[in-house]
Amino acid sequence: MYRTHLAGTLSAADVDQQVTLAGWVARRRDHGGVEFVDLRDASGVVQVVFRDSEAAELAQRLRNEFCVSVTGTVARRPDGNENPDLPTGEIEINATALQVLSEAAPLPFQIDDHVDVSEDVRLRHRYLDLRRTGPSHAIRLRSKANHIARNLLAEDGYVEIETPTLTRSTPEGARDFLVPVRLQPGTWYALPQSPQLFKQLLMVGGFEKYFQIARCYRDEDFRADRQPEFTQLDIEASFVDQDDIIDLGERIVAALWSELAGHEVPLPIPRLQWHDAMDRYGSDKPDLRFGQELVELTDYLRGTEFRVFAGAIEAGGYVGAVVMPGGAGQTRKELDGWQDWAKARGAKGLAYITFNAETGEPKGPVAKNLSEDHLAGLADAVGAKAGDAVFFAAGTDRRGAQELLGAARLEVGRRTGLIDPEAWAFCWVVDAPMFEPTDDGGWTAIHHPFTSPNPEWVDKFETDPANALTYAYDIVLNGNELGGGSIRIHDAKVQSRVFDVLGLTHEDAQEKFGFLLDGLKYGAPPHGGIALGWDRVCMLLSGTDSIRDVIAFPKAGGGVDPLTSAPTPITPEQRAEAGIDYVPEPEEEEAGTDPVAS
Amino acid sequence: MYRTHLAGTLSAADVDQQVTLAGWVARRRDHGGVEFVDLRDASGVVQVVFRDSEAAELAQRLRNEFCVSVTGTVARRPDGNENPDLPTGEIEINATALQVLSEAAPLPFQIDDHVDVSEDVRLRHRYLDLRRTGPSHAIRLRSKANHIARNLLAEDGYVEIETPTLTRSTPEGARDFLVPVRLQPGTWYALPQSPQLFKQLLMVGGFEKYFQIARCYRDEDFRADRQPEFTQLDIEASFVDQDDIIDLGERIVAALWSELAGHEVPLPIPRLQWHDAMDRYGSDKPDLRFGQELVELTDYLRGTEFRVFAGAIEAGGYVGAVVMPGGAGQTRKELDGWQDWAKARGAKGLAYITFNAETGEPKGPVAKNLSEDHLAGLADAVGAKAGDAVFFAAGTDRRGAQELLGAARLEVGRRTGLIDPEAWAFCWVVDAPMFEPTDDGGWTAIHHPFTSPNPEWVDKFETDPANALTYAYDIVLNGNELGGGSIRIHDAKVQSRVFDVLGLTHEDAQEKFGFLLDGLKYGAPPHGGIALGWDRVCMLLSGTDSIRDVIAFPKAGGGVDPLTSAPTPITPEQRAEAGIDYVPEPEEEEAGTDPVAS
Repeated sequence: MYRTHLAGTLSAADVDQQVTLAGWVARRRDHGGVEFVDLRDASGVVQVVFRDSEAAELAQRLRNEFCVSVTGTVARRPDGNENPDLPTGEIEINATALQVLSEAAPLPFQIDDHVDVSEDVRLRHRYLDLRRTGPSHAIRLRSKANHIARNLLAEDGYVEIETPTLTRSTPEGARDFLVPVRLQPGTWYALPQSPQLFKQLLMVGGFEKYFQIARCYRDEDFRADRQPEFTQLDIEASFVDQDDIIDLGERIVAALWSELAGHEVPLPIPRLQWHDAMDRYGSDKPDLRFGQELVELTDYLRGTEFRVFAGAIEAGGYVGAVVMPGGAGQTRKELDGWQDWAKARGAKGLAYITFNAETGEPKGPVAKNLSEDHLAGLADAVGAKAGDAVFFAAGTDRRGAQELLGAARLEVGRRTGLIDPEAWAFCWVVDAPMFEPTDDGGWTAIHHPFTSPNPEWVDKFETDPANALTYAYDIVLNGNELGGGSIRIHDAKVQSRVFDVLGLTHEDAQEKFGFLLDGLKYGAPPHGGIALGWDRVCMLLSGTDSIRDVIAFPKAGGGVDPLTSAPTPITPEQRAEAGIDYVPEPEEEEAGTDPVAS
Repeated sequence: MYRTHLAGTLSAADVDQQVTLAGWVARRRDHGGVEFVDLRDASGVVQVVFRDSEAAELAQRLRNEFCVSVTGTVARRPDGNENPDLPTGEIEINATALQVLSEAAPLPFQIDDHVDVSEDVRLRHRYLDLRRTGPSHAIRLRSKANHIARNLLAEDGYVEIETPTLTRSTPEGARDFLVPVRLQPGTWYALPQSPQLFKQLLMVGGFEKYFQIARCYRDEDFRADRQPEFTQLDIEASFVDQDDIIDLGERIVAALWSELAGHEVPLPIPRLQWHDAMDRYGSDKPDLRFGQELVELTDYLRGTEFRVFAGAIEAGGYVGAVVMPGGAGQTRKELDGWQDWAKARGAKGLAYITFNAETGEPKGPVAKNLSEDHLAGLADAVGAKAGDAVFFAAGTDRRGAQELLGAARLEVGRRTGLIDPEAWAFCWVVDAPMFEPTDDGGWTAIHHPFTSPNPEWVDKFETDPANALTYAYDIVLNGNELGGGSIRIHDAKVQSRVFDVLGLTHEDAQEKFGFLLDGLKYGAPPHGGIALGWDRVCMLLSGTDSIRDVIAFPKAGGGVDPLTSAPTPITPEQRAEAGIDYVPEPEEEEAGTDPVAS
């Protein structure tokens, strides 16, 4: 028996008890032959005192992060030595025996909350990094999040079902990770980008309520908040409409934030229509922790001679603005910095006007180009006061211009301290567009081609694809997309009409989605679902900045694991055995010319 | 709103209620213009009666597995029409409205409990197969098993942690599935065979209690009870000994069998030493539902002139036997069948003696070769009675001979009905050997090289590697290995001594297991764990014969998914983009000649 008690649970109630503890040396101090050791285990920290000469002598050998077992008696600390910051701060252990369970080599970094080594070093020794309070809490919080969500779903009658992770490559969408199949040389599995098709088939299979905390894979270029493998809480239900799924999503989110962040989410969570979100916040995942909504000026500025605006307006485009409170006080360098910021985003620049803090007089490059009338009413039109700055965006691409302003709005919020870092602002974004135009004049599905049109559009989406809206919903928190889903098409006739708009022939559709389409033939129930990006949910819940903080062993840049050095080259034997370079026999080749329909 | 109630929950208490139900047409009968429809949803089945002419007319169009919504009034069934076999058998729904939610094409097989189509057809249309009671129950049971195990572990303070599935290829053990890495061309991830190394690192990381229901991957040749991807309940804990993990395993198993199979497992579960299991049952996963233990005859038959036995005995080998009660009554053809059975297992045959049912006289090929003395005492020595048969195995390879007898024992059990199909016989097999000899005269680890010797052997395993025993434990049910684990080595000195026995240099070890060995340097706690083969656990709990029955979308032979046709060829574009055929630049090639140490 390595221990009788957990270090962090001891209190004055245990005084005079003999205890055996096991854990790590968090800190040792030598006070003239008396050794003080902070002993840490998963439950917390307790102070151990070695006064006994033999154990004290052994204790002098302890270095940080030695793993030890200690036996002793719980004692009240001498008056004045209590530590009110520590749950066990009223007591200490008078140690009588010490056993070193294993020694620790000199550490690459100290186990405290303020390491200043690079993330790469932390990840290379992740097993040490995880002993720190922050990383340890983040991983433990994630475990609790799983528990809360699963128990809520189980109580609701949801069935947890594992779907395959060695599956079929889908030639559309993001890149698949591929796996050569030794037993079927020349063929490959793909790792799934999501369980989408399988969860729809489970609805066809009559499960009615499915969920899974599912590992998914997407071979994308590395970005700070992306990992090649990620996790989603995946849910699908039958005989439901959008309100049912939204209600479930709200209950999950409310339970998580209540239990893990001490925040009661006011329900129902407000819903924004997708077009409203774009118009007001320039984003389909608006940060509602602050206002500073965009203002459309297309009508107000109609007739302007300023070429940039006039061109957009005449072409049926968009001109809009966002106000930066107090922004007129920025230096020339700061204002130039906004131009660099805009260029880094791929824009030509960011037009602006400042209103003099005392006179309210509009100044800046745009001011020179606007008529007196336009200038006179501008502050009122955009809601600016003396001392503010106004940033403009204009373009024939309404969405692109709005997104630039939306990004500027976020930047304004950050730079002016308008964003309350303690606030939790949830919203749903609903009624997203169904299609977007392709370069060759056709249409492509914005979600996936199984997303149902919403009730208003189900009978007429083909008459006006540009404006047709789906039964899709995203849940957004503080500008982060937590997840999204949709009601799916279960009616073969609607599905064919969608394929018609997409210009997909029956044969194309069968080749790409045949096994799902086959399933939908056999009495498919109305169904829909949602997937929550679990890494991001846990990141926000734990108050960390990176999804890597809520992943036990994350990949660094380029998909490299600094701990294991994965990925690595493989041996020629592995390559040969896996059938990676298999060349079919001539007669097989003929039967297998079609790379998809095997 | 598609429905107000669930079909299977209605009872006489709901009479006169108006309800709307949604589900599938399980069966329709036409009784002269009155239509009777069995409506099935996830909760059960209820009878719906269409007497109203308009709805009845529509109902006539219904075929099996149409998905429908029905509105009507709950009514008590007419006297004598109750169905006591159906939970809703007292009532029926008098339908007033019917809506077809989606139609069903003619079915490839009927949705009832006695399909006689091939498994391939069932799997190709798995979404229909899953509508059947048996498959649906098996998948739902698995969900409950997850829930029970996870909640027990959470109550015990275990932290659920996801470990990577895109990781580093380990050049030892079973074959890895490989994944080319586009962002690091020329390198590959491997899919993990288990989270073993990561869970040990989590112990180094101070989590103390870890679990995960983990997807694992092993590229093995296809066998009936193997899938390329499988799931295990993976557990690891620190500051524990073998009894702690065994106790936890017993509580999990007891909770599962109590709640899901209505069976109270008597605790503690008996433990068998590995050598005892081999001696008594000829198996390291003995089926304890029946006796018929093996009897060793090496000493009894010492001095025999029968060449087969004498050869084994003189070479220090083994002769043993198993009794088949009533086996003397088998026909010559049946006795010959045993020879074929043995040859199919790779043995030369199966020597036997029968004892005449009336006279007790020993007969058969072996009887002729044994001395009168040996024959006279044989029945007593093996515990046979008149009318029984005795099967023998002999060999210099004790284990091989025992395994043949162990397999014969199982076959005897099956053929004579000695195995109670309702029985649940659990046991632990402990103290497995640490090493086995390699062909070149060295030693290899039977488990993995991190498995700790048991307390008796920890100080001396290198003096007698052939007999050294580990701190490993397998849990066995009815002859199936449910799972296994071990206490791991956390002491670097013990670890070096193990590597010495294995003939592994420090450099070899570092190359193969470097990142774990590095972790063990920093105050690794004593730790151990277990993994339960979750597919098999759920298979046994659900009373099915195949792990495919508890997997929503299993692979068939050769790793092929009959539903999606995965795996498939990939396009040349996919191949090029994934960097599969990447050839390094000459200067890089030099730096990368070592295929492992990247």
